[in-house]
Amino acid sequence: MPVNLSEPNNLLAVDGVELAVAASEMRYKDRDDLLLIRLAEGSKTAAVFTLNKFCAAPVHLAKKNLSEVQPSILAINAGNANAGTGEQGDKDAATSCDQIANQLNIAPNKVLPFSTGVIGMAMDMKAYQYGVEQASKSLDATWGQAAKAIMTTDTIAKAKSVQVPIGGKTITITGISKGSGMICPNMATMLGYIVTDVNIDADVLQALLSKAADESFNCISVDGDTSTNDSLTLSATGKADNQIIDSAGSSEAKEFYAALLDVAQHLAHAIVRDGEGATKFVEVYVSGASNEDCKAVAYTVAHSPLVKTALFASDPNWGRILAAVGRAPIETLDIDSVDISVNDVSIIEKGNPASSYTEEAGQAAFDQEEIKMEISIGKDKGNARLWTCDFSHEYVSINADYRS
Amino acid sequence: MPVNLSEPNNLLAVDGVELAVAASEMRYKDRDDLLLIRLAEGSKTAAVFTLNKFCAAPVHLAKKNLSEVQPSILAINAGNANAGTGEQGDKDAATSCDQIANQLNIAPNKVLPFSTGVIGMAMDMKAYQYGVEQASKSLDATWGQAAKAIMTTDTIAKAKSVQVPIGGKTITITGISKGSGMICPNMATMLGYIVTDVNIDADVLQALLSKAADESFNCISVDGDTSTNDSLTLSATGKADNQIIDSAGSSEAKEFYAALLDVAQHLAHAIVRDGEGATKFVEVYVSGASNEDCKAVAYTVAHSPLVKTALFASDPNWGRILAAVGRAPIETLDIDSVDISVNDVSIIEKGNPASSYTEEAGQAAFDQEEIKMEISIGKDKGNARLWTCDFSHEYVSINADYRS
Repeated sequence: MPVNLSEPNNLLAVDGVELAVAASEMRYKDRDDLLLIRLAEGSKTAAVFTLNKFCAAPVHLAKKNLSEVQPSILAINAGNANAGTGEQGDKDAATSCDQIANQLNIAPNKVLPFSTGVIGMAMDMKAYQYGVEQASKSLDATWGQAAKAIMTTDTIAKAKSVQVPIGGKTITITGISKGSGMICPNMATMLGYIVTDVNIDADVLQALLSKAADESFNCISVDGDTSTNDSLTLSATGKADNQIIDSAGSSEAKEFYAALLDVAQHLAHAIVRDGEGATKFVEVYVSGASNEDCKAVAYTVAHSPLVKTALFASDPNWGRILAAVGRAPIETLDIDSVDISVNDVSIIEKGNPASSYTEEAGQAAFDQEEIKMEISIGKDKGNARLWTCDFSHEYVSINADYRS
Repeated sequence: MPVNLSEPNNLLAVDGVELAVAASEMRYKDRDDLLLIRLAEGSKTAAVFTLNKFCAAPVHLAKKNLSEVQPSILAINAGNANAGTGEQGDKDAATSCDQIANQLNIAPNKVLPFSTGVIGMAMDMKAYQYGVEQASKSLDATWGQAAKAIMTTDTIAKAKSVQVPIGGKTITITGISKGSGMICPNMATMLGYIVTDVNIDADVLQALLSKAADESFNCISVDGDTSTNDSLTLSATGKADNQIIDSAGSSEAKEFYAALLDVAQHLAHAIVRDGEGATKFVEVYVSGASNEDCKAVAYTVAHSPLVKTALFASDPNWGRILAAVGRAPIETLDIDSVDISVNDVSIIEKGNPASSYTEEAGQAAFDQEEIKMEISIGKDKGNARLWTCDFSHEYVSINADYRS
């Protein structure tokens, strides 16, 4: 059960964007597993990709195609990641673009391919072809269907729309994402697709996407495992007809960024709330050192299996938080400067157990589904904020059973 | 159930070493939880301690006392780690030494205190005093009793003895260890105590212990959580009366080191074999880059929850190993140089799926209780070897239930 997350609603169509879904039956039975997002001529797409060095074949090809031309089609299949598949995987990714290009009568490099699912298994290209043929029949799917078609171990679809006025025009932003395991995006994300009708310069679009990724998808972790397939795209059709946003510093760019970040953070948080086996949504905020050191401490706490199992148990066993802070890979730590609180209950003050702390207050804090840990390690101005979940029996069940 | 590990037997007394155990009832009922190891006058003790910056009060005091004088007593209590206890913790650690010193009529700084158990809870010094009084009545416990008295979540006692001829004398080495969770020693270990009757220079003793720790306890991980209390000591009584070993480069030092490493690796492996919820014993060997990069890759694989749950499921889902290698925090990785095998079944060759691989062969390899992963990432001469275990439902149960 996802933590405080419902089925998406009030999803808005975006002018210049059409959707198609199909069931290729490549891996899943009786459900859509292929999504095509068609972008009107003149649309611009920005993207960020995983830094995993074993990144998947479609990631390689999507990067290459995007470097050559603005895409017409984003094509996503769920069930097979086409990663760890060697040269055959590269061939299959190319074939997937060819199949779509033939069907829709466009150039193959105008297709950006994305895959998610099991790693190390050859793609079934006959099933893919079947899916493409089915999907191409009608480009009239809804965003709700689109969000469902890209799910793997997700238990709930993830999507959000917002509208904002920019330069006298109403701009719409709609995004979808998927992912609940192998989640520790590194400069990129799990699969996330955001489209908008804003009229914007391509370089500004890329700059704003990179920034939004850093403040959303790059700050979440379910299990510390960075995927081979993480990808996030932002496409702008320009159909809103606002005066073009051509500077990242303009007030219009800032307005657009605020709305974009709203969507990106919702989608990123949704992945954590639906994290494999999650029963708690946890924010870890570390301050008082350099940004880099704060991030190292935050990740050490967020990845500690002992902290995560204590959270699952609603056990105020805060010694495990303290032990994680103490082993974080940073040069120096003045333990007499360390303050720790959980949901505003002070636990450690200046390195000592807080005199005000009671087991009852600690228990009440850890009983919440929404946990906010605040860790201050000094007086410097840097900080880092991460979102993660707890570690439950269900996580082990899901991951011991997922493939077989 | 520990993985291929039985109750220790054939444990040998060491001349110059006496043992006492007692049940203080501080936390556990009806079991010994206090161990005193008494070293004959003239004994020399070397030690390595945790690098966790929130290291426990007894660790601070043990370091201080050891810097002043050679110890007569190693005192270990199980159930309360006396970590995260602030100034009160420091006072309690000092009181524990005072209580023992009074009882045995020695100077307080000749006691080295060690604690293991829950973090963040005040010590019950009345119970400790009671334990000390009981233990002091007779110093005639066995090594089997000693190994049991220091257990926390351990399901089996861990100990080993060896004898070797050195310089015409028979040398005895006996060691005990404990630990099965919060295991990722960093330059030190969980609790481990090794004693020997060898006659050896104190500096040489420390050098050999540090080296042995690096090749045993510092290469194991259960959950990546480095404890606040890790400590390993090596005491030599000199009673074997061999000619003193005064150079780490001598052939006698090398003979002694081989026997010491045998004991240290057995004790370290025993911790992994009894790792919380472990069902598999896993060796990860990485070669072909600098030692440092090999270690980074090995730890990334060994700590990946997805790899560990696949191992638990005996699922040859090797894509997760590949994804972990790809996200390891190293500067460069030439994926075309990567070879991976599990129990001699080749999985990846030069970055591609091995042509000889079959699902049946992979299944047979992953079905074993003893797993050896070999990962080659290039042609450089460095390497790293780690030992870890899988990640099971039982791990979550133990750590969601441990404190409450």
